[in-house]
Amino acid sequence: MVGPLPLPVTPDIALPESLGYRLKNKLLGAPLHTEELENERLGIPTALAVFSSDCISSSAYATEEILVHLLPYVGLAAFLLVIPITVALLVVLGFLILSYRETIKAYPTAGGAYMVTRDNFGLLPAQVAGVALLTDYILTVAVSVAAGTAALSSAASFLAPYRVEISVAFIVIIAMTNLKGVRESGKLFALPTYFFIAIMGVLLAIGFVKMGGGHLHPQTLDLHPAALKKKGIISIGSAGTGMLYGLSMFALLRAFASGGAAVTGVEAISNGVTAFKKPEWLNARKTLMIMGGVLATLFLGLSILSTRTHAVPYESGTPTVISQIGKTVFGGGVMGNVLFYSLQAGTMLILVLAANTSFADFPRLASFHAGDNFMPRQLTKRGHRLVFSNGIIALAVASAILVVVTGAKVDRLIPLYAIGVFTSFTLSQSGMAKHHWTKREPHWKRGLVINGIGAVLSLVVDIIVIITKFTHGAWFIILLVPVMVAGLVRLNRQYELEEDQLEQDVEESVTAPIMRRHVVLVFVNKLDTSTARAIQYARALMPDELRAVHIAVDRAAAHELAERWRKLGLSRVPLELVDCPDRRVDRAAVEVVAAELNGGTEVTVLLPNRIYSRFWHRFLHDNTANEIASVVSQLPHANVTTVPFHFAPRAPKHADATPPA
Amino acid sequence: MVGPLPLPVTPDIALPESLGYRLKNKLLGAPLHTEELENERLGIPTALAVFSSDCISSSAYATEEILVHLLPYVGLAAFLLVIPITVALLVVLGFLILSYRETIKAYPTAGGAYMVTRDNFGLLPAQVAGVALLTDYILTVAVSVAAGTAALSSAASFLAPYRVEISVAFIVIIAMTNLKGVRESGKLFALPTYFFIAIMGVLLAIGFVKMGGGHLHPQTLDLHPAALKKKGIISIGSAGTGMLYGLSMFALLRAFASGGAAVTGVEAISNGVTAFKKPEWLNARKTLMIMGGVLATLFLGLSILSTRTHAVPYESGTPTVISQIGKTVFGGGVMGNVLFYSLQAGTMLILVLAANTSFADFPRLASFHAGDNFMPRQLTKRGHRLVFSNGIIALAVASAILVVVTGAKVDRLIPLYAIGVFTSFTLSQSGMAKHHWTKREPHWKRGLVINGIGAVLSLVVDIIVIITKFTHGAWFIILLVPVMVAGLVRLNRQYELEEDQLEQDVEESVTAPIMRRHVVLVFVNKLDTSTARAIQYARALMPDELRAVHIAVDRAAAHELAERWRKLGLSRVPLELVDCPDRRVDRAAVEVVAAELNGGTEVTVLLPNRIYSRFWHRFLHDNTANEIASVVSQLPHANVTTVPFHFAPRAPKHADATPPA
Repeated sequence: MVGPLPLPVTPDIALPESLGYRLKNKLLGAPLHTEELENERLGIPTALAVFSSDCISSSAYATEEILVHLLPYVGLAAFLLVIPITVALLVVLGFLILSYRETIKAYPTAGGAYMVTRDNFGLLPAQVAGVALLTDYILTVAVSVAAGTAALSSAASFLAPYRVEISVAFIVIIAMTNLKGVRESGKLFALPTYFFIAIMGVLLAIGFVKMGGGHLHPQTLDLHPAALKKKGIISIGSAGTGMLYGLSMFALLRAFASGGAAVTGVEAISNGVTAFKKPEWLNARKTLMIMGGVLATLFLGLSILSTRTHAVPYESGTPTVISQIGKTVFGGGVMGNVLFYSLQAGTMLILVLAANTSFADFPRLASFHAGDNFMPRQLTKRGHRLVFSNGIIALAVASAILVVVTGAKVDRLIPLYAIGVFTSFTLSQSGMAKHHWTKREPHWKRGLVINGIGAVLSLVVDIIVIITKFTHGAWFIILLVPVMVAGLVRLNRQYELEEDQLEQDVEESVTAPIMRRHVVLVFVNKLDTSTARAIQYARALMPDELRAVHIAVDRAAAHELAERWRKLGLSRVPLELVDCPDRRVDRAAVEVVAAELNGGTEVTVLLPNRIYSRFWHRFLHDNTANEIASVVSQLPHANVTTVPFHFAPRAPKHADATPPA
Repeated sequence: MVGPLPLPVTPDIALPESLGYRLKNKLLGAPLHTEELENERLGIPTALAVFSSDCISSSAYATEEILVHLLPYVGLAAFLLVIPITVALLVVLGFLILSYRETIKAYPTAGGAYMVTRDNFGLLPAQVAGVALLTDYILTVAVSVAAGTAALSSAASFLAPYRVEISVAFIVIIAMTNLKGVRESGKLFALPTYFFIAIMGVLLAIGFVKMGGGHLHPQTLDLHPAALKKKGIISIGSAGTGMLYGLSMFALLRAFASGGAAVTGVEAISNGVTAFKKPEWLNARKTLMIMGGVLATLFLGLSILSTRTHAVPYESGTPTVISQIGKTVFGGGVMGNVLFYSLQAGTMLILVLAANTSFADFPRLASFHAGDNFMPRQLTKRGHRLVFSNGIIALAVASAILVVVTGAKVDRLIPLYAIGVFTSFTLSQSGMAKHHWTKREPHWKRGLVINGIGAVLSLVVDIIVIITKFTHGAWFIILLVPVMVAGLVRLNRQYELEEDQLEQDVEESVTAPIMRRHVVLVFVNKLDTSTARAIQYARALMPDELRAVHIAVDRAAAHELAERWRKLGLSRVPLELVDCPDRRVDRAAVEVVAAELNGGTEVTVLLPNRIYSRFWHRFLHDNTANEIASVVSQLPHANVTTVPFHFAPRAPKHADATPPA
C-alpha cells in the first residue's frame, strides 16, 4: 500500500459544483474515497444475500422445470423420477461447491473462472470462460426481472399491459441501488432474500410435519387429455407411451438439463472473493457452504413435497408448482392464507433479486477483461461509490434491451441459460485441476480429484444441455460466444497496437529538441473583447510569427473587419483575410493551418472560446469554433488552444481581461 | 458587391474529406459557391410552382369547407349561398393581391410581413407577424402531407396503417429536395403543380361546356336524415330550422371563415421576393397576379359546378366534393375514367406540395428573425446548396413531430390554420398603409386606399375566424403566439446582453499588456510518446514556469510514473503528483489550475490528445482529457491546448514527433 500524496491546494476562486455532480450526490449519496474500499467489504450475512440470491432463487422453479419435461413422456412416473433427478443434480452441486472451495483458496485475491482459466490456460480460453459467463449474466437479469414481473402481474392483472415497463423499472431500481455501492445494495437486498429463505423454511417444516402425520395427500388428477386441457394442465403421458417411442432417455436427460438451471449461480461467490471482509477466502468459503446447504435443502424438500402432493405444471405457467404445494401445505384459514401470500410475495421478490447477483458479478468480471485490454478500459474505473459503475450501466442497458426486444416474454431465453455457466465451470475446474497438477501444493491430490470430477461433471452437464436444448436456442449461444470472443480479440489487438506506438521511441521523444519555428494563428470572427483577449494571450506566447486569420463567408463583413482592425491600431498583429466561397469555414481553417506545417514548424491555433453561463445559451450560437478545433486537431503539430472569455452573469471575480496595474 | 479575397494556399499535405461531407455531396449534389446565388434565382414559371402550390391547393377543398358549414343549417339553400360566399372571399383575395402588389413594390429586396411590420411598427410587432406566419407554416406542412396521405390511403387502403410513416416520409422527401437548392426543388415540383392546374382546367372546361349544353344535372338527394346517414352524407338541414334557431348568421360567417383558408398562401410570394430573377419586384408581381387569377378561376369554377351537381360532403371526408364533381363532369367510359383518376392524382399531389411553399418561405422568414437576434443565429447561415438548411431542417422536424403526435389525424389542426395568416396580413397591410401615409411616394393615395381596405378586410376575417372557431382550437393559437413571442424576446435580450459584453472595452482590450507570468501545466497520465510530444511543445512556448501534473487515482501507478520520469532524465520538467482519493480527475485538475490563477498569471493547460484513425476507436478510451478541457475552460485565463498525437494507420507524412535534423 502506498501512502497518500499531496492534495491540490485550495484555490482562491469559488468553484461551483456542476449540476450533474450535485444530482449524483443526491441520488447515490456522498462520494466514497478510494481508501474506503476496505469499509465497503461485505460480512457473511450481507454477502450471502448478494451472491446467493441467483442460486437460491432457482429452488423456486427447478422442480417445476423437471416435471414439465417429464410428465408428457413418462406420465405419473415423473413423481417417482423427480427425486432421483434432484439428487443427481445435488451431487453435481456438491462437487461444484467442493471445487469452488478449492478455487477460492487458490485464488483468494481475484478469483473466478476468468482468473483461473487465464492463469492455467492463457488469455484466449479466459475470454471464452468470461464471455460465456457475461452472456449468462445478461440473460439472468432479463429472465429474472421478467419472471418477477410475470408473477406480479398474474397477482395484479391490471399491471399485465405494462410488463415491459415494469421489467425495465425493476432493472433501473436494481442498477441504481448497485450504483450506490456494494454494501448499500447488500443491506437493502438482504431482507427479501432472508424473507424468502424463512418462508420456504416454514413451508418445508409444516410440509414434512404434515407428511409425517400422514396429512398430506396427492390431488386426484383426471388424466384424460381433454380433462387436462380444460383445466390448463400440461399433457401427462403414460409411462407406456414414453417407453414405446424410446423417448424416455432423452426426456430424462432433458429434465436433468432443465433442472441444471438450479445449480447455476454457484460460481457467483468465487467471482466476488475480493468483496468479502478479511480473511476473504475463509469468509467466501463459509458463505459458499451455507449457500449450498440452503439450496440443497430447499430444492430437495420441494421435490419431495411435489411428489406427495402431485403438484402439476400448467400450460400458462400459473399456478406454479410451488404455489400449489404452498396451497396444499398451508391449507385454508386466515393463517394459511397469510402464509400462502407470503410465499407468493417471497417468490416474486427472490426471482427479481436473482438479477442482483449478476449486478454484483458482471461489472467485476468485465473489469478483469478490461484490465487485460480485452474490453473498453472504462470498465476498470471505480465510480462515485467505488463500484464499477460503467459495468453496472452496461449490464442494465444490455438486459433492458433484451427485455424490450422480447417484450418481456423470456420463455425462449431460459434454454440459453445454463450453457454459458457450465462452459465456464468446465474451463475453471479443469484449470484448477491443472493448477494442482502443476503447483503440487499441500493436499494437491485431493484437490486434483475434486476439481477433476468437477470438471468432468460440468462438461457432461454442458454436453447434455447443448444436445437436449440445441434446437431450442442453444445453437445461438454456441454461435454467439465465439463471435463475441473474436470481437474481444480484435479489440485487444487494437489496444496492443496503440500501446506499442505510444511506447515507441519514448526515450528519444522526451529529449527531442523543440521545433525551429512557432507560428500562432488567431482565428477571428469579429473584432470584440473575446478576440482581443485571444490576441493578448497570443502575444504572451512570444511566437516567431503571429497572425490573425479571418475566414470570410461574407466579403463585405470581412472588409469592415479589416477596416476596424486598422482603425484600432492592431497593425502589430497582421490580419489575413481568406476567402471562403463554399462557406466551409472548418475546411478553410484546416487548409490555412496545413499550409504552415512543413516538418519544422509548431503551429498554435487560438480560438476565442466564449463561456456561457447557462447550459442552453450554448445552442444559440453556432458551433464553428468547435468544428474548427476538431478538424484542425487532425493535423500533426497543430495545437489547438481555446482562450476563454466569460460572460458576466456567473464569471468568477478576476474574469476581467486586463491584469491589475 | 465586394470582390473576391485570396483563397487559402494549397497545403502540401493531403487532406481527406470527411465521410459526412462526401455523403452530403452524394445526396445534395456539389456544393454551391456564394457567388452562384444569382444563378439560383427563379424565373416566373418555376417561382409560380414554388410559391403558389399552397395557395392553389386550397381550391381543392375550399368549396367543400363552405358546404360542410352551410348544409346542416340552411339545407339545400347552401347551394345558393356558396357562390356569394365564394365571391366574397374572392373580393378579399382581390384586395389582398392588390395590397401585396404594393408591398412587393415598396419592399423589393426583402419583403414580407416581417420586414413591412418591422419597418413601420418596430421589432416587437414584427415578431408577432413573423411568429404567426411561422406557426402557420408548420401547420400547413403537417396538414398538407397528412391530407395527401389520407387521399393516397383512401385510394390504396393497404397503406392506411402506415399513415404516420408515409406522412413523415413525404416531409423527409420535400425537405431533402429543398436542401438541394431552390432551383432544384422548383424544377422538380413544377410538374405536379402544372399538372394539377391543367387537369382542373380540363374539368372546368368540360364542366362549363356540359352546363352550357344543359347536360349537367344535380344528383337527387333523399334528404331524410336516416337516408343521409345510411349513405354517410353529412346531415342536411332545412332552411327553416336554421332561421328558426337564429343560427344562420353564425353559420354563414363560419362558412365564410372556413372558406378563408382558400386565400391563405397569398403572402408567400411577398416573403420570397429575393428568390426571383431580376427585376425581382416586377417578376414577383407578375407571378402574384397569375397565381391570383388561377386560384380565383379554379375556386369560383368549382363552386359553380358544385351548385349544379349538388355534390355533398360526406362524414368520412370521402368521396370529396371535387371527386364527385369530377365523376359527374367526366362521366364514365375509358376517357372519363382516365380523366377522373388524373384529377384524383393531381389533387393528392397538390395537397402534398402545398407543404413545399412553406419550405420555401419558413427558412427565409426565420432567417429574418435570426438576423435581428430573435432566433438562433444558425438560421441565418446558408448551407451546402445556398438555402437556409437549418431552417428547412427545423421546419421538417417541427412538422414531423406534429404529425407523429397527432397520429397524422390532422382534422383538428385545420381550424388553427387561418388565424396566423390573417394576423400577419392585418399587420403587414396596416404597415403598408402607414408606409404610404409617412413616405408619400407617387400614387401614395391609391396605395393607402388599397392597403387600408386590405388591412380592414384582413382584420375582419381574422376576427370572424377567431370568433367562429374559438372553441375549435383557435384559443390555442391565441395563447401560443404570445408565449412564443415572449420566448423570442427573451432570446433577443440574451443576445443583446452578450453582444454588449463583447463590445465593452474592445479598444482597451486590444492594447492590454500581456500578463506578468505564463505558467504551462502538462497533464500527464502515463509517460508515453504522446506525453513526450506535449512536453516538446510545452518547451517551445518558453513559459516562465513549466510543470507536469499527474492526478493520482492509483497511488502505486503514480509512484511508478515518478520513478520512470526520474530515470528518463526528465528532471528539467518537474513532475507534480496530486492525490485524487475521490477519483474525480476533472475536479482535481480544475483545482490545480485555479490555484495558479491570481489575476496576473496566464495558465496554459496542455492535454496530450490522441488522434485515433477510426471513429469507433475513440469509444475504447476514456474521455477524461475532454472532461478536463471542458471544466478547466470554465476558468478565466486558463487556456486549454490539445497537443495532437497521431496513431500510424492514417497519420499524414510528417506525423513523427521529432523535427528533421
